[in-house]
Amino acid sequence: MRHKKAIRPILKRWSQRTGLELPEEEKDMRATVYHGPRDMRIDQVPDPIIEVPTDVVARITHAGICGSDLWSYRGIDPRKPGERMGHEWVGIVEEVGAEVETIKKGDRVISPFLISDGTCEFCREGLPSSCIHGARWGGSNNGGQAEAIRVPYADGTLVVVPKSVEGDEQLLKAILPLTDVMATGHHAALTAGVRAGSTVAVIGDGAVELCGVLAANHLGAERIFLIGHQEPRLNLGQAFGATDLITARDEQAVQQVREQTHGGAEAVLECVGTLEAMNMAIHMTRPGRAVSLVGFTHASQAPDLTYRLFQNITITGGVAPARAYLPELLQDVIAGTFDPSPILDMTVDLDGVPAGYAAMDERSAIKVLVRP
Amino acid sequence: MRHKKAIRPILKRWSQRTGLELPEEEKDMRATVYHGPRDMRIDQVPDPIIEVPTDVVARITHAGICGSDLWSYRGIDPRKPGERMGHEWVGIVEEVGAEVETIKKGDRVISPFLISDGTCEFCREGLPSSCIHGARWGGSNNGGQAEAIRVPYADGTLVVVPKSVEGDEQLLKAILPLTDVMATGHHAALTAGVRAGSTVAVIGDGAVELCGVLAANHLGAERIFLIGHQEPRLNLGQAFGATDLITARDEQAVQQVREQTHGGAEAVLECVGTLEAMNMAIHMTRPGRAVSLVGFTHASQAPDLTYRLFQNITITGGVAPARAYLPELLQDVIAGTFDPSPILDMTVDLDGVPAGYAAMDERSAIKVLVRP
Repeated sequence: MRHKKAIRPILKRWSQRTGLELPEEEKDMRATVYHGPRDMRIDQVPDPIIEVPTDVVARITHAGICGSDLWSYRGIDPRKPGERMGHEWVGIVEEVGAEVETIKKGDRVISPFLISDGTCEFCREGLPSSCIHGARWGGSNNGGQAEAIRVPYADGTLVVVPKSVEGDEQLLKAILPLTDVMATGHHAALTAGVRAGSTVAVIGDGAVELCGVLAANHLGAERIFLIGHQEPRLNLGQAFGATDLITARDEQAVQQVREQTHGGAEAVLECVGTLEAMNMAIHMTRPGRAVSLVGFTHASQAPDLTYRLFQNITITGGVAPARAYLPELLQDVIAGTFDPSPILDMTVDLDGVPAGYAAMDERSAIKVLVRP
Repeated sequence: MRHKKAIRPILKRWSQRTGLELPEEEKDMRATVYHGPRDMRIDQVPDPIIEVPTDVVARITHAGICGSDLWSYRGIDPRKPGERMGHEWVGIVEEVGAEVETIKKGDRVISPFLISDGTCEFCREGLPSSCIHGARWGGSNNGGQAEAIRVPYADGTLVVVPKSVEGDEQLLKAILPLTDVMATGHHAALTAGVRAGSTVAVIGDGAVELCGVLAANHLGAERIFLIGHQEPRLNLGQAFGATDLITARDEQAVQQVREQTHGGAEAVLECVGTLEAMNMAIHMTRPGRAVSLVGFTHASQAPDLTYRLFQNITITGGVAPARAYLPELLQDVIAGTFDPSPILDMTVDLDGVPAGYAAMDERSAIKVLVRP
């Protein structure tokens, strides 16, 4: 095994240079690969190697299946067959490039859902999601739903997890959502202006929305309306800090929030991105306050920008700069300030990943933890 | 004249009660009335009277024609024939309702472009543009492009102008833009986050945009890009504080601002409301920063909300809460801190109002001052 591993990088470079495919026996890492809508498979692929001196290679210990992975699964956000999946992961560093400064072999690392160099002007301004060398995991990069991964710009991208978490399986599970959904919920709450005493509305009962409730509660919101339809998820929302559960839909939900808040919630979190959800969110926002739209926008039609204009509603939020939040949120979770782990209500090994996608697609699981 | 004026209120009430029209000789105030697209006329209409005890009646001394009046003039924002025009005015109080507390007969008053009660929760929160009793001037209410006007919720709506301005024609002219365009420019700059040292871009060279430049300069912006096409207006913008004039259009203008700011302006002011202008504004904004959209949205198609999402651009601003800004801005103008009067580059009497509309429509005048 050692010997094989040692020559694999050489074989990989030879394969890259010649364009010839590696022999099957040398492709021996397993990873989640997109083959088509509703067709995710666990394939043998080449082991990741250090390609440039700022890379590290990590062995994945924990990965997540994300709601946004479902857009690919459902064929709405099309991918090319052969693309790798997964952008939420925690792992242990196995190989370190020559120019990596802050990360050592054996470190437990946590990755945000975007790659960033850590040095460009946007990274320095606290917006690594706009990094000029930024890239996504998965796609043609390595994916997190795999045995191992190559990490570009390792110093910029990764955060080393304190040694104190080692051996604490519960805590390791609790930090995984910080890679994406919890960072996104936090970003939504923060940008919408949630502070001590705020009245907040959160539209939807998916993993990001539940993390939004947790974040709003963490930021001191006094009243949190959670709009959803599935009882177990609403119950979890309540455990996370939601004070008012709204099961009505569309216009009726808007009206209930407006009535109970005497004119709208001071901060509204919308994480879905459909036209209906955006319009609900805008109409639920108190005049002069903010709605954070963090869901990937699938609507080509405009939401009600005229109402926004007349009522001075600010549309804010966006793709979360998770890397910027990670150190602080990691500290909070380790300190026990909040714990998003209950959203991970199904655990699978790598072979179970396709079943995990199916469970999330059917909404029988909120979010799936992968233990490769 | 006195005697006639004294019985006119009685005749007016009789007319209202019976539904019978007043005889022509008793309709002796003159006002601007919409008759159809490009057909504004100065008609004889009944004098305004106190209708409820919170009203005052004022004689108009200064009024403005607004860029938004042009939407009616051009038939894009349709009105019913017979509707009154004008929502920017300064006047002198002639009659005071029994329940009015802060305004006396003979006071010089300035009005924001919206009526507000001054007491509802939104007024108290500093957002009188969302007043629950809010209404617009013109339309079926009295308009400002007239000899006199009835003012509902006078205590809430009006601000008394300090006596020190009396006799200073230049200063009286300088305060008129505070009723709307200057308040709107200030709102755009403030909500977009302009502060000392900011890099700002202002799209367009109309009256609101030029006021936006003035406001950004007043708030301490270090660099102000003004995107326009008419040399005299750009020169005025430069006098107001614009440091960089951009005459390129569309994508090219966007690219120039992005290049010269290394990634976009920290605050962008967009006061037009077309799809093209909104998209220029969004793409000109630095990732993580804000664009203020204060132009009435005439676009049914969505601007690029996906770019907004990925670059964390906040869309803010809206209909300016001018009443909330008036006391402070009035003080600033009286103190000589800034002077928006140069935007009023054409003056007409009431008979000249139709010609004033035509001049603004042809863009031969930036903004018209009406002296009834």
